[in-house]
Amino acid sequence: MKASRTVPQAVLHRLPRYYRYLGDLLEDGVERISSSELGKRMNATASQIRQDFNYFGGFGHQGYGYNVAKLYREIADILGISNPKTAIILGMGRLGTAIVNRITFTKRGFEVIGVFDNDPALIGKKIGTFTVLDVAKLEDFCKEHKPVAAFLTLPREAAADTALKLEALGIRGFWNFSSGYIRLNDPTIPVENMHLGDSLMTLSCRMQEHDIKND
Amino acid sequence: MKASRTVPQAVLHRLPRYYRYLGDLLEDGVERISSSELGKRMNATASQIRQDFNYFGGFGHQGYGYNVAKLYREIADILGISNPKTAIILGMGRLGTAIVNRITFTKRGFEVIGVFDNDPALIGKKIGTFTVLDVAKLEDFCKEHKPVAAFLTLPREAAADTALKLEALGIRGFWNFSSGYIRLNDPTIPVENMHLGDSLMTLSCRMQEHDIKND
Repeated sequence: MKASRTVPQAVLHRLPRYYRYLGDLLEDGVERISSSELGKRMNATASQIRQDFNYFGGFGHQGYGYNVAKLYREIADILGISNPKTAIILGMGRLGTAIVNRITFTKRGFEVIGVFDNDPALIGKKIGTFTVLDVAKLEDFCKEHKPVAAFLTLPREAAADTALKLEALGIRGFWNFSSGYIRLNDPTIPVENMHLGDSLMTLSCRMQEHDIKND
Repeated sequence: MKASRTVPQAVLHRLPRYYRYLGDLLEDGVERISSSELGKRMNATASQIRQDFNYFGGFGHQGYGYNVAKLYREIADILGISNPKTAIILGMGRLGTAIVNRITFTKRGFEVIGVFDNDPALIGKKIGTFTVLDVAKLEDFCKEHKPVAAFLTLPREAAADTALKLEALGIRGFWNFSSGYIRLNDPTIPVENMHLGDSLMTLSCRMQEHDIKND
């Protein structure tokens, strides 16, 4: 099943959270859940949950609740998780390593097939199940293995040029941790930015709104 | 200067990006910039930029552009950057270490005054300018130094309990990297979540919308 183009972005952005939460329920052996119970656990109203799920054809039965496993599979399809996309990671310093250690990529829609760095101290090193490859071999690797996504955990200075190079090598989706600007020739290519500094400034701003100061 | 309560959340969420960008301009020695030039560089329209800045009393002169340094300072005030809040970090594994190494906290509104872990291999270790403290000393530390914010880079299982404990110890703002749910007794306390897995699923979903698949 595929989400129709008319699904609002706001709904799509809530799906990862629904998906994670349903995964927890599955692990706990929960087979059915009502929209009101799901809402209560997720700080949403039952009606919002019903509205959101209606965009994907319902999935539920009035007065009977949702089948957790079925809902989980259908959201997985919409998120593209059942169809993992090949990815490479550029930058295997502490952040790249932390990501490899914390995330099960196949549960998030990706299969990482290569990790790269330019630091001789890292090249050849084993990190998790990966061996760090020399970034000098990036072009050959892409031609041979045709990854479609790239995760950038590079220093800021390197991100923009690397992204353009990767676009030329066929990368069609970017997960970017660098605070540098990525400008691609094709502006329709999805780029998801994880700007750590921006998130922290938003927290600062919200605390200031609440007038929270040091003693 | 303080943002009025009527500033829309969407505008507030754009401020960190404006702020970063103006910082780059300052470093490049740019003294004035027009809204159209700023818009072009930031992929926004001049009119959106003028509208956004109008919420904070303008800052610009028609046909003359914005004074970069002044605008930078005023946005810094709104974001609470000129008024750093004391913070502690819980979890000094790879992710905590990566964050300490990548972010200049004082440029983002915070002053980190203590970093903690429960791993004997990490306690006492020097990471950047910090020495990792034993989490057993957390309570005494908070009573003495009264930090107001906490950054959680803990494993998922530990996040919820730790957050509640920190709330009781006076923490009034959370930056949370754990995928676990944080529920505080006071629901008005700001929590900024950095859900790595959700961001990755959003990329997967957007790539699927563009019908990007492996060869």
